[in-house]
Amino acid sequence: MIPWISKAKDDDVAVSSRIRLARNLKDEFFPSIMDDLAGDRVYNKVKGMFDTVDNYSFIKMKDVDPVEKHAMVERHIMSRELENSKSGGIAKLDNESVVIMINEEDHLRIQSITPGLEIEQAFGVIMDIHEPVKSQFAYDDQFGYLTACPTNAGTGMRASAMLHIPGIIMTGQLPNISNTIAKMGMTVRGIYGEGSDAVGNMVQLSNQITLGLNERDIVDNLKSVASKLIANERNARRLILETKASQVEDQVMRSFGVLKYARRLSSKETISMLSDIKMGISMGLITGIEHNELHSLMMDTAPCQLQHTLGKELIESERDIIRADMVKKALSNTKEA
Amino acid sequence: MIPWISKAKDDDVAVSSRIRLARNLKDEFFPSIMDDLAGDRVYNKVKGMFDTVDNYSFIKMKDVDPVEKHAMVERHIMSRELENSKSGGIAKLDNESVVIMINEEDHLRIQSITPGLEIEQAFGVIMDIHEPVKSQFAYDDQFGYLTACPTNAGTGMRASAMLHIPGIIMTGQLPNISNTIAKMGMTVRGIYGEGSDAVGNMVQLSNQITLGLNERDIVDNLKSVASKLIANERNARRLILETKASQVEDQVMRSFGVLKYARRLSSKETISMLSDIKMGISMGLITGIEHNELHSLMMDTAPCQLQHTLGKELIESERDIIRADMVKKALSNTKEA
Repeated sequence: MIPWISKAKDDDVAVSSRIRLARNLKDEFFPSIMDDLAGDRVYNKVKGMFDTVDNYSFIKMKDVDPVEKHAMVERHIMSRELENSKSGGIAKLDNESVVIMINEEDHLRIQSITPGLEIEQAFGVIMDIHEPVKSQFAYDDQFGYLTACPTNAGTGMRASAMLHIPGIIMTGQLPNISNTIAKMGMTVRGIYGEGSDAVGNMVQLSNQITLGLNERDIVDNLKSVASKLIANERNARRLILETKASQVEDQVMRSFGVLKYARRLSSKETISMLSDIKMGISMGLITGIEHNELHSLMMDTAPCQLQHTLGKELIESERDIIRADMVKKALSNTKEA
Repeated sequence: MIPWISKAKDDDVAVSSRIRLARNLKDEFFPSIMDDLAGDRVYNKVKGMFDTVDNYSFIKMKDVDPVEKHAMVERHIMSRELENSKSGGIAKLDNESVVIMINEEDHLRIQSITPGLEIEQAFGVIMDIHEPVKSQFAYDDQFGYLTACPTNAGTGMRASAMLHIPGIIMTGQLPNISNTIAKMGMTVRGIYGEGSDAVGNMVQLSNQITLGLNERDIVDNLKSVASKLIANERNARRLILETKASQVEDQVMRSFGVLKYARRLSSKETISMLSDIKMGISMGLITGIEHNELHSLMMDTAPCQLQHTLGKELIESERDIIRADMVKKALSNTKEA
């Protein structure tokens, strides 16, 4: 089970929340233009900065095999971009609730992740990490913290929430809602970042603007818009139950039956059917499993994370059989309500 | 539950067996060319012939509503052709193991149906019915019993077995087997007669030739070829389990999951998934239900039979919901082996 995932308020819709800060060291070039020597120097400076603070473990990307890298992407603790960074690496706490990417687009991407909509807690953690070391970062009185990409300048902060919104998607409200959210300086996108699909009816809500707002405002805006989306989603689910109950119940229960009995499950259909199960729990159709357990299962059954857990490389057909077995076990205590 | 269906030998493959005799009264025109008056006269003569013999109930087609007619077709106790016969009717025993169609293609089509491959028993029943009344039928020393269509002349007898052959179909053996069977004067076709598809992997094996063979030969040939097909089918299932077990097990168990949990089931997918379940029982994947119970369920969930049982007309979406409920109940004691 993914260590940082636990039961949380609003987790019928909000899977997780995160804050990340983009920071760069003074007197060093940005990663995109620095040479390998500089990259290693930055890595070591960051290591020195956090080595004594808490129980961080440091890993250099070049020492990580490709499956493990992809597994970390699937767990949402690092970006695809970091995978190929020569001097890149990460520092992370054991439970992976705090992860610092080193030499991704910026020297540091410090992120704190929490379950549900506990963005306030993530914010607190980030501020505590940042405070003692902030004097070492490139800062400009006019532009704030300096970042490789100007869109991150200012606070360098992104607050985001991963939301499960099958109701909003089914009722066709997503395009309108996305437009409204865009006008508020925020954005809704697929869970693997810009341009990715809403896999498993999951989207990531985040602030688009980092300049001209202070950190407090960003967090408050995120909380406010996320809360509205959560309310929208619950309304949409109610509406669906009122207007096309039998059709949606059928879809949910078929997914339930297939997940319980299939002998092979692809990752794509698994995430999609687990999305149905999640909605089914909210709708009172299925009992015996908590939302956070489902969130874990969604990540645990991702192709590389599954291989990471088993400690060996597997071909797709082998993974499909093991995935079906994992899902069956995870759902063994569930039943039709 | 369909009354004549009970547990029987070989019912892992053989669903039912039947013998039917085509007979026509002396001194009457064949149904296709007789007028209404003659039709009624024939009906009454047949009624007189069987009224005193056993506990037959007589129904005239014109007194039967369309849903009930279709339900009888779905239960395989009458043909589609009889539905629109003006002076047509049926005589049947309570358990429907014996049914006489009156004024279908011939004046009489006497059929006895038994579960499994108990064709011998059906043959005995038919001969016992036929013996006391045979002198009243049109008979020619050269051509035997005379029938409306020359292909039925001679014995006027058709022996058939309904067989569930997913293994033969999956392994692609059906075309070859059909050819071989044709050369032996027999035929394999869909369960609703000539030209119909192998719905639910079910086919009907029957003799094509009625002339030049005696009744005993026809029954023996049917038994012999059916037994070979049953052995072929069991071999095919074994082969499948050896070569693509995981794929077929997955298909069977997915159908099992969907049938157990769906809230709506169309008749088409139901018959197809029940076919998977039937194979799953044979393969030892599913326990808690007998083959004959599945056979009943296949017929009970057919669109008109379902309405007949409930005693009211229902639109498709209503039937789909009720069908899902019936299937769920029927499978409530089943489980993964």
